[in-house]
This record gives sequence, C-alpha cells and structure tokens, in this order.
Amino acid sequence: MSDARAAAQRAFDLKTKPRGSLGVLEEIAVRIAALEGVTIPPRRKAAIVVAAADHGVAAEGVSAYPQEVTPQMVANFAAGGAAINVLAREAGARLVVVDAGVAVPCEQPEVRALRFGSGTASITRGPAMERAVAEAAVEAGRALAAELVRDGIGLIAVGEMGIGNTTSASALAAVLLPAKAAVVCGRGTGLDDAGLARKVAAVERALSVNNVDPGDGIGVLAALGGFEIALLTGVILGCYAERVPVVLDGFITGAAALVAARVEPASVDAMIASHRSPEPGHALILDALGLEPLVDLRMRLGEGSGAALALPIIASSLALLNDMASFDDAGVTDAGR
Amino acid sequence: MSDARAAAQRAFDLKTKPRGSLGVLEEIAVRIAALEGVTIPPRRKAAIVVAAADHGVAAEGVSAYPQEVTPQMVANFAAGGAAINVLAREAGARLVVVDAGVAVPCEQPEVRALRFGSGTASITRGPAMERAVAEAAVEAGRALAAELVRDGIGLIAVGEMGIGNTTSASALAAVLLPAKAAVVCGRGTGLDDAGLARKVAAVERALSVNNVDPGDGIGVLAALGGFEIALLTGVILGCYAERVPVVLDGFITGAAALVAARVEPASVDAMIASHRSPEPGHALILDALGLEPLVDLRMRLGEGSGAALALPIIASSLALLNDMASFDDAGVTDAGR
Repeated sequence: MSDARAAAQRAFDLKTKPRGSLGVLEEIAVRIAALEGVTIPPRRKAAIVVAAADHGVAAEGVSAYPQEVTPQMVANFAAGGAAINVLAREAGARLVVVDAGVAVPCEQPEVRALRFGSGTASITRGPAMERAVAEAAVEAGRALAAELVRDGIGLIAVGEMGIGNTTSASALAAVLLPAKAAVVCGRGTGLDDAGLARKVAAVERALSVNNVDPGDGIGVLAALGGFEIALLTGVILGCYAERVPVVLDGFITGAAALVAARVEPASVDAMIASHRSPEPGHALILDALGLEPLVDLRMRLGEGSGAALALPIIASSLALLNDMASFDDAGVTDAGR
Repeated sequence: MSDARAAAQRAFDLKTKPRGSLGVLEEIAVRIAALEGVTIPPRRKAAIVVAAADHGVAAEGVSAYPQEVTPQMVANFAAGGAAINVLAREAGARLVVVDAGVAVPCEQPEVRALRFGSGTASITRGPAMERAVAEAAVEAGRALAAELVRDGIGLIAVGEMGIGNTTSASALAAVLLPAKAAVVCGRGTGLDDAGLARKVAAVERALSVNNVDPGDGIGVLAALGGFEIALLTGVILGCYAERVPVVLDGFITGAAALVAARVEPASVDAMIASHRSPEPGHALILDALGLEPLVDLRMRLGEGSGAALALPIIASSLALLNDMASFDDAGVTDAGR
C-alpha cells in the first residue's frame, strides 16, 4: 500500500508544477492511491447515499423541527427538490435515498426501503434498538456499498436525514471520543437555549440509562444510535472492505464514522472528510479520526450536502493525477529535479 | 442593489432547509444577486482568463525557476497539459490564455496576443513600464471582460503565469496595504532562505527607487506591476463595470485586485475570493479587501488553479437558489416561519 502512495506522489512530482504546489489536491489522490494500491487511481463515478430514520428521542423536545419533517423531506428527496438533489446533479453523482426506519414508511418508488423499525426507541429510556437490529442495519449498509461498487461506482458520499439525530450522534460521540455531553451538543438545525439544555439533559440521561462498553462499537451503536446511523456505519465499513473512498458529511455521519473506526480501525484509511460543520462535536470527531476537512463553509444542513460539495474537489484531484503533462512530455524545465 | 440582496436571502429562507443552514453557499448567491440587481441570478457559463508575462526583476534571482519557464508553461497551457487545463475542463469553463508580454512572443494559435512589451524593466532600477502602457493594458483587460460577457460568459476567473511575478505582487502589496517588504514576501513557488532574502531586498530596492504615490493606483501599477497584473486589473474592473462576478486566485491576482480596488473601490463588490494561498501577503490582501476565501487547501501554484477549483462551489450556490423547492412547493413544515 505505501508503495502505491510513494509512487503516486512521485507521479505528481513529475507533473508540470512546483513540487507539492497543489497542496491538498495532491494529498487526496495520493491517499486514494494508497487505499486502492494503484499508482494512478482512475477517475470514477460517484454516488451519494442518504439514509433517513426517525428517533424516539425527538419526543424530548430536542429538535427545532417536528418529527413529521423526516418523511416530508424524504418525499422532497424523491421529488428532486432538496439541496442534496441540486448538489448531486451539480456533482454528476447518483443519489440513493434509503428509508432505514422512518416512523411512517416512505412509499415513493425513488426511495429504497431498508427499514429496521418505525423509529428507534428513546435513548433516554433504554437502548435505541436491539443489538441484532444494529448488526442487521450495518450488514445492509455493507451490502449496499458492495452493490454500488459492483455497479461501477468508485466513490461514495454519505448523508442523513432524521429529526432528532444530532442528539443520537451527540450521545455516540460522548461515549466514543469520549467527551462530556455539554461539549458535544450543539444547536443542530436551530435549537434555542432551552432546547439545547433539553438536548444536553437527554444525552446525559441516555448515557446513564444505557451503561455501554465504549470498546464495543456495535453495542454503543445499538444503545445510542439510529437506524440511519447504523446503516451508514455499514456503508463506511463496506467502502473500506471494497477499498473505495467514502466521503463523510457532517456531525452525524461523523458519529457513524467513529463507530466504524471502533469496529475496524483501519477503515479510517477509506474516509475523506468533506467539510467542518459548526456543530461543536464535529471538529472533535475529525480530530479523533485524524481527518482534515476540505472546506469550512458554515454548512449545517446534513443530507450529505457538504459531502456532495466536496465531490468535484476529489474529482479534480484524481483528474490532475491522471491528466496533467509531465515536465518531459511538455518540455518544461524542472527546477526541482 | 440592497433590495436584490434582501430578496435573494428571502428566497433562500423559503427553501426546504433551516434558515441559513447552507452557510457560505447562501452568501455567494446573495452577493451575486446584490451585484447584478436581480433576486435569482441565473446559472451561467464561466471563463478563466490566464495572463502571462515576464518580469525584469527575475534577473535578480528572486525565483526558483528560470525565466524560460514562462513561455514553456504558456505552450503547456496551449497544449492542454497544465493544471489549469485539467481544472478548467473539470469545471466546464472556457480557458482564455493571454500573452500580455512574455519576453519571447508566444506563437501558439491558442494564445491570445495582447502584448505590452517583451517583459517589464526591473522594478529594482525604475518603473516596470510607462504609465501609458499600464493604462493600455488595463484598458485591454476591461475590453476582454466586456467581450467575454457579450459572448455569453457570466462568471470570470483570473489566473497568471510569470516567473518573478510574486516579487512584483509583493511590491504592489507593500505599497497598497501598506506593509513591510519582509511581511508580504514569501517563498513563491519554492525559494530557499537565500532566495527569500534576495526577494525582500529586491522589493525594498524597488520601493526606494520608485517613489510612488499609494493613492495613485495606476501609477503604482506602472512602477511595480507586470503586464499580466495590469491586464488582470483591467479584467477585474471590466467585470465590475459589466456587473459580472470575478473570481480571484491567489497572491498575484490579489495584488491586481488591490490595484483595482484603489482605482474603483466599489469593484470589490464583484470579487469572490477562491482560496487562501500560503504566501504570507495573501491573507493580508484578502483582509484588506474584506473577502473570505472559499477554500484553504495549501495550493500555491497560481495559473488560476484556486479560482478554477472554486467555480463548482459558486455554480452550486447559484443552482441551489434557482432549483431548490420551497417549503410550500414541497409540502414541508417550516418551523422557522
């Protein structure tokens, strides 16, 4: 693997530009080369997997939006009107919308039903789901990644929708980083001060009610996660198993990535961080994973919107390694030689 | 103008997402709305203008590369093998390569000859060019912007190539910010410590030999600029005159933008900062212009590479404002209403 990394960096060093002058654009393709074990990783088609589910903890007043918004937004994804639809079209990426467990099943033909319940149980009263359910959701995510790769996809972005899911992600981050609830909880999509206090209290109750073992990634996921987070954990692990890069979005997909890294530490090698969200726990997650985000544009929407925005940057990185002329080819003097 | 700004922000607020949750992606389209005086600025085709020229100051040992690299890289642009060619193709942008005054004329048919000399005189011994030449180069840049707009281009990115031109840009920045030579000078495309010391000394000599009036933008440009910097100053002013946004690249185009802002302070309204380069003077220029870069990826190549990388982000911002569904259209509950 590190042979491919060095060979890819050498290939960049022969391109008509000062050594290293493309900065992170060089690092992305070099990391992908290392993951895939090839010197010049080819250009490829991308897909965005957006998984949706409902959360019992939403009943605790931890979101600025009512739970009915989850299926409404899934219908919006199906109709093509949401931000992620626009961004997927701009990036030329296939959009795969998954109902992983919305309270009322989403019936649109554009939505893939991989349901593991009708919303989780509230994490403030016990585990979100049975361990076997978490295992099944992770397995479904792995299978989805493998299916997309068989279908010619070579880059997978992940996104989510689920009213209340920043609370679930905060509980996961609090255990896995670890960190105090008050440190990882933020305003999500727009909580006021009272809402934020309820959220911190809900996470603290969830942590005390569910006495989890932080070393047991799947156990933590079953206790504190959501169906969409479990499915995306599987997509991330499946991408690593297939040696295909996976582009993380914001805080919630970051929590899924933390679980994936606990289950399979080497899976971090497949992860690309797209953006840094203002949610306070997100920077902590990226630090824990050792990942540097590509952009920092104060986006806090979710849906995979930050990951979608990073796809053209990643595509450009691969295109530069594939298509730029070398000093010899172009007859340009190489002062760095 | 501020009516259009407010109307564009209201339009974003009705889209199916929490208020402001697309962060800077909302701000870009809202700024363009304000510039153009329309609520929903349409999607548009982009062009990248890369201007090349040689600099007499290169003889002072201020670059890691020999002057012959300027025409070699222009030939590489013409042949399609440089980083900017790859990035322009990825962004779907038209690439316009201009020879603004390379020491030996570039003969490729793909290169537009708008020449104002065969390299500038060394700024360490006197003015780089006559004032009338600077005025003519600025005028040619304005005319080029107007021509591109007539040809259906609605977004123009600027880039440059010219061995020695970070020294010229450093001298311009030192006068216009103002700042000390040692503060604005960096390693360019790869100077060692001795080269950096020569560069600082060259800028200090240029400032003492050319006794410029900082309030006279064109005078400063003629004394310390380069032909490509003068042409790009004109492109930036032409974009503002046409009310078309102009995407800056790194330090050298930033120096052109400083000159443009001195000539016409309101031209800053047309400028979009693409990236922050590691060149120390660049952050100072962006602060002086009040611009926040979209990405910070340690790119230090020039050629318009950072500006090209920002084009898909700007396109996404406009696409979101044009194409996203509203809460009413999509039947999504708007908690922020």
